[in-house]
Parts: sequence; C-alpha cells; structure tokens
Amino acid sequence: MRRGEVIAIGSELLLGGRPDTNSLFLTEALAAVGVEVRFKSVVGDDEADIMAAIRTASRRAEVVVLTGGLGPTGDDLTRQAAARVTGRPLRRRAEAVEGMRQRLAAWGRTPSVAQMRQGLIPSGAEVIANPVGSAPGFCLTWNRCFLVALPGVPAEARGMFMAGVVPRLAAERATRRLPLIERRLLHTFGVAESDIEQRIKNRIPVKSGVRLGLQASPLGVTVSLTASGERGTLRGENKGARLLDRVLKDVQTRLGSCVYAEGSETMEQVVGRLLASRGLTLAVAESCTGGLIGHRLTQVPGSSAYLDRVVVCYSDQAKTELLDVPAELLLRYGAVSEEVARAMASGIRARSQASIGVSVTGIAGPGGGTAHKPVGLVFVALDADFSQGPKRRRNRTRLAQEFRFHGDRDTIKLRASQATMDVLRRCLIS
Amino acid sequence: MRRGEVIAIGSELLLGGRPDTNSLFLTEALAAVGVEVRFKSVVGDDEADIMAAIRTASRRAEVVVLTGGLGPTGDDLTRQAAARVTGRPLRRRAEAVEGMRQRLAAWGRTPSVAQMRQGLIPSGAEVIANPVGSAPGFCLTWNRCFLVALPGVPAEARGMFMAGVVPRLAAERATRRLPLIERRLLHTFGVAESDIEQRIKNRIPVKSGVRLGLQASPLGVTVSLTASGERGTLRGENKGARLLDRVLKDVQTRLGSCVYAEGSETMEQVVGRLLASRGLTLAVAESCTGGLIGHRLTQVPGSSAYLDRVVVCYSDQAKTELLDVPAELLLRYGAVSEEVARAMASGIRARSQASIGVSVTGIAGPGGGTAHKPVGLVFVALDADFSQGPKRRRNRTRLAQEFRFHGDRDTIKLRASQATMDVLRRCLIS
Repeated sequence: MRRGEVIAIGSELLLGGRPDTNSLFLTEALAAVGVEVRFKSVVGDDEADIMAAIRTASRRAEVVVLTGGLGPTGDDLTRQAAARVTGRPLRRRAEAVEGMRQRLAAWGRTPSVAQMRQGLIPSGAEVIANPVGSAPGFCLTWNRCFLVALPGVPAEARGMFMAGVVPRLAAERATRRLPLIERRLLHTFGVAESDIEQRIKNRIPVKSGVRLGLQASPLGVTVSLTASGERGTLRGENKGARLLDRVLKDVQTRLGSCVYAEGSETMEQVVGRLLASRGLTLAVAESCTGGLIGHRLTQVPGSSAYLDRVVVCYSDQAKTELLDVPAELLLRYGAVSEEVARAMASGIRARSQASIGVSVTGIAGPGGGTAHKPVGLVFVALDADFSQGPKRRRNRTRLAQEFRFHGDRDTIKLRASQATMDVLRRCLIS
Repeated sequence: MRRGEVIAIGSELLLGGRPDTNSLFLTEALAAVGVEVRFKSVVGDDEADIMAAIRTASRRAEVVVLTGGLGPTGDDLTRQAAARVTGRPLRRRAEAVEGMRQRLAAWGRTPSVAQMRQGLIPSGAEVIANPVGSAPGFCLTWNRCFLVALPGVPAEARGMFMAGVVPRLAAERATRRLPLIERRLLHTFGVAESDIEQRIKNRIPVKSGVRLGLQASPLGVTVSLTASGERGTLRGENKGARLLDRVLKDVQTRLGSCVYAEGSETMEQVVGRLLASRGLTLAVAESCTGGLIGHRLTQVPGSSAYLDRVVVCYSDQAKTELLDVPAELLLRYGAVSEEVARAMASGIRARSQASIGVSVTGIAGPGGGTAHKPVGLVFVALDADFSQGPKRRRNRTRLAQEFRFHGDRDTIKLRASQATMDVLRRCLIS
C-alpha cells in the first residue's frame, strides 16, 4: 500500500475558525487509487513552516498533496516553499500563464501583476491546469516522493486533482499491482454508540483483516468496515471486496432498521429517494429546527419534485394562521407538546394537499426550558395519506414521537432535524 | 511566545468525511493565553501513528493538545499511546472512575466494563474531569512538553479545556510574562478578495509587525490583522493592541459598508442584533435557499423575539397560496424574476404583519438553468414598513437586487442566504 499525506496550507486554517475540508475528498480519492493517508497536517502561511511540513511528510510518504497558498496575494507562499525545499528555482512557465490568461479572459479580465506571479512554477515540475479558477497547480518527483500542489479553493482542488493527478496514480497502481483500500459505511440513527458496538463486535471475523470503526455525531452513529486488499491482483481484490460485503450484510442484519443509509448517502437523500420513487409529495412544518429540515432536504438536487413547501412557525400566531393549529390547543398543552405537533402535521398536510405532512416542535435552548419541559424535549409528528387509485382506498397514517436530546442549540437542532426525517423514513419503508 | 500543537485522533477524520473542528477553538483558546499553534495534525486510530505524532509534536512545541480516542470502544487508543510514548504505565485512577460513575448515574446508567477502561490514566498524570460526558481526560509534563489529552466530542473537549487547562496556562503566562497574540477580524460581503487587498494593503504600516490575512468563502472575504506582543509586559501588550486597533479602524474606513461584522460575530447575529435593538420583526420568504436563511437566523439564541415566520415556497402554487404572488406574475416573468421576488417580500410582510419581509428566489442548480436565466441567478427583495409612533409617519422601503453567483448548489445556497441577509443589514443600518 502506498502511503500518502495531505498538507493544508493557510493561516486561516489555524487561527481563523475554518476547518480544512479539502483533505477529506483528497483522502477518499487517494484511497480509491490505493494510496492510504495516515497523517494530515495544517500549517500557516509561513515559508519555513511549509518547508518543514513538506520535509516531514516526504520522509513518511510516497505521495504528498499540498492544498492552498497558490493564490495571487502576498501570503500565498506554497510555490516558494516547494521551490526552496526541493531546490528547483521558480520559472515563469508559458503554459501556466496562457491557461490563466484564457480563464480570466472568459470573465472579461486580464491578469494583474499579482496574478502573473501564479505563472511561476518550480523548474522541472509539471503544470496542472486549473479548469475552474485562475491559479495553476504543479507536481514533481523529489526524493522518491510524488509532490502535488493544488489551490485551496475546494472546487478547484477537486477538479484539478481528479483530472490532472488521479489518472496518473491509477495507472501507476495498475502497473505496480498495488492493493486497494476497500471500505463500507453504514449510517444509523437512534441507538447509542456503545450499544451498536455490543450488537456487532462479534460479527467481525477474527484475523479477517476487517477493521471496525464507530463514529458518533448528532446525526447518529456511523459504522465503518475497512479492509486492505493483500495483493494488488484482481483476484485478491475481489476476494477482499466479497469478504467485506459479507460482513457488511451480517452487520446490517444485526442492526436492523436503525440503519438509514449506506456509503455516502445522507438521510435527506434517502428520504428524497423514497418520496420520489413512490411519487409522493411532502410538506414540512418546523418550529425549533428553524428551517434546517428544509435546508437539508433542498441540498438534494431535484428536491423540488417532491418538496411542496416548508413553513417555519416560531410564533403561536403563525402556527394558528399558517397551520390551523387551534389556539386552545396551544393554550392548553403549550407549543411544545405532542398535541400541537400532531396538529401542525395535519395542518400543513391539509393546507398543502401534499401526501405527507411532518412537523417538529421542541426546545432548542439554551433558554426556554422548565423542569417539566426541559431543553432538548422534542416532539415529531407525521400525517400521511397514501390513499390512491380509482377506489381511493383509505390508507392514512398518523403518528407522533417524543425525543429527549442532550447538547447545545446547534446539536439539538441537528438531532431534531435528523429525528424528523427518520420518522418520515420509517413511515416510508413500512 | 510559547509554541503549541494540536493533534486530532480518529480514523474517521482521515477516511470518514468528517473535518477536525476541535482544533479550531483550541487554537483560538491557546492564542488567548499566549500559545501560538503553528502545526495541527490528524492521525488515525493506530497506536504507533499516534505515538509518532506525539513525538514529532513534542519536539516542536511546549504545549501539545490531543483530542479524540479516549472513548470506551476498541479503536480508542489515545491513552495507551500516550502511556507508551511517555513511559508512564496506565493505572486505574479512583477520581477518574468516580467522576464517570457520577455522570452515568445522573443518566440512570452504571459504567459498563468497556466504560471502566476510561478510568485508566497514565501514572503521574493529572485527571481532567469531564463535566459533560463520561470520558475523563488527563495532562502531564514530559520532556519539557505539557501534554493534554481530551475526548473528541466537541462540547466535552471545549468544556474540559476551558475549565481544566486554560486557567493553568494563563497563570503560567502571567508568571513567565509571555507575550499574547492579538488578532482582529473584519468580515466583508460583496467585494472580491483581490479588490479587498488592493484597497487595504498599503494601510498596514511597514515593519509594524502587523500581518494581513485574507480568506474568501461563500460567506464573503474575511480580513485578519495579527500582531504578537513583543514582550509580555502589560505596557507592551497595550501598545500592540492599540496599534492593531488603529490599523483596524483605518482598514475598516477604507472598506466601508461591505464590512458586516467584526471578530466572531456572524451575519445572522448582526442582523438579529439590529432587529432586536430596533424592536422590529422579520418574516422571510425563501425559495432557492430552501430554509437555510431560517436555519441560520434561528442559530442565534433568542431569535424568536424578532423572527416571526419563514416560508419556503418551492412550488408556484405555494407562492400563490402562502404569499399571494399573483399567478399571472409567475406566468409572465417566471418564478426567478425581480417581479416575483418583490411580490414574495410584500406578500409575506402583509400576511405576517412583520415590520420587514425579505425574499429570495433563484436557481441553485445544477439543473434548471437556461441561457437567459443561468444557474446562480438570484433575486433578493425587501419590503419594510418602519412607520411608527402615534402619527404613524409613513416610512416604507421597497427594494430588489439581482445577483449572479458561481459555484455548486451548496455554494449558491450559502451565497444567496448571505446576500439576502446583507440586503436586510444594509436596509437596517441606513
């Protein structure tokens, strides 16, 4: 297995409140061509620190990918650092300048003096064209290490890596018959991490080389199963993949309906897929989630086919006006109650004429909780009418569920949005 | 200046699609007590790799903070790795077990065998109590390096670091008179990164030690000004802070109204603060943003005081029913048009009786674009009635603005939500 490292460059990734996200897809894409990333690092806009990071990584790995610090501003120092550490002086490269000029011309601009610096490339390096933005990247081999430099803008880094680097690493893997990393993911909701482990840990065959990973988040617990093919032959790979799929199936059976998705599918994609395949429409009445369910559902391209509307009713008045929640219900049980959740779901369904109405009401905190109704108390309700066909056989489902979540406002909103979509999912698969 | 490093531990942070976010607040909190983080790293659940990461970091830094890998499951290996690398064998520690037992008892549970492993602490280390979850942390001094181990769950890591580690580092800074890092942030929207740099780069006094950083994202460009106090005396610090504040003021003047926030304030907080201080209410009509504006506004605790309702109208029918957008307007100009945006803003304001109605309609993509109306075309509109007082002097503002954004669906939704709130902000400050 080739070893890889990713170095994200930029002071804003240290003291700037911004996580490094490029390394996530780079690690996935590298695994897919048999390069295992075991260390990632982040370093600021400091030439000496970037040089130190490149040196450390190149001693441990065969493939090192740098992202960031290739822009036109004064704090973009990756090209200088890479040139100095590898002893390859920067030279203006015609193909780099030309690509940049064309890209800017398409936007009706000409390169500024600062942008022209982006045409400087370490001598002997290959230029990686940027199909999205203006800064070209480059790659070179140094001390048996394949060093790649990409811009920090995610869309640019991704496009350039997939088009300019992956084919080359894939070809090399095929030639050298290097093994692949096989990986399967199962996403669960509603069961604690330690309970998940209890249920499945004896399902992983001993000495099979299959590694189990568990990761809890507000969206649930993700189970990962990873295996590295022992040899890079097609037969060995198929064997590893088959074993992994067998274990996956076994684990999935043990876990049952708390598994809501496999692989990279999200809850909103699952729910969207189920709605679309059944030709159903959805209307959502949110309260404590404040629009998060709508936001998540509409992250899925094409969601307009099944999502009719979302209403966020923070005030009691809005609940009455937009969802026909009886004022006396609000008065008697309070806005955060099973009764109001049910009325919200039925109200939005009736108004919208969508197949399904779902609702959520709760206390996201940090204020607003009482001893009787603490922060984290959430009610989800659903009203579905699956009646169809000429005879319109009645097929109505109405249900409500209570949840008690821990965490801060952000966490409770996330959990409540996930719980609402999970109630919807369970209804759609039953 | 003391140097620090943060090591995030967990295979899901490598091949799991999850960014390391703990290091963000740790870096901020460390800077506030005079520890400068220059390298961050991420390593998987592998004992040898964790040991290697600790060794590398401890050679470069005086303070090393580890997060993750302290949980009860088999892939939690941080305590073992820390014990082995420092040569301090693990021992069950009474105070660690007791704290865990109490925490679980509050949830009506008793520690499982697996959870009891969390009571193992390297000998000679100090236990850091966990006020939020079950896993205790620890800290120890090894090779002149102060090593801290915290759980990976953000709320736990943050609580334990602030209560159990920060006071100690702050006291040490005071005793050793170590300098602080002073930092100021300005958040802008609507102006390109290179234009921002052009406007302000000659405002940074040469040799002042003030460093300028620029970071572009879908939410705008953030300008950072950083200075390290030269000596840890109160006078030196005050001088550095005063200089930084002077530069900040100058830069802010140059940038003008595109600056929407300072420091850690977000657009939704700014807008919320302006609405609350003026006693105004808001109603939002979203289309292409799908609920993201509502979600962002309701991330702010107390937003129910000014946010009346949010309506997400994906279908034309919903626009007509919920916002009284005339069907002929939709037919004539299409749902993505200035006319419909204006009608949506006026409709939601009239229906809700809120002081201000804002709306957004656009094409988030990837599908749905045409030559005439490409992906990324967005219209924002606002209808505000500030009439007040006994004489109800008419004070009505109606406006609309067109935007053309680049990027994927997620980026366009983010930019459109930011643009909508920025239109609202500009109206509120004018």
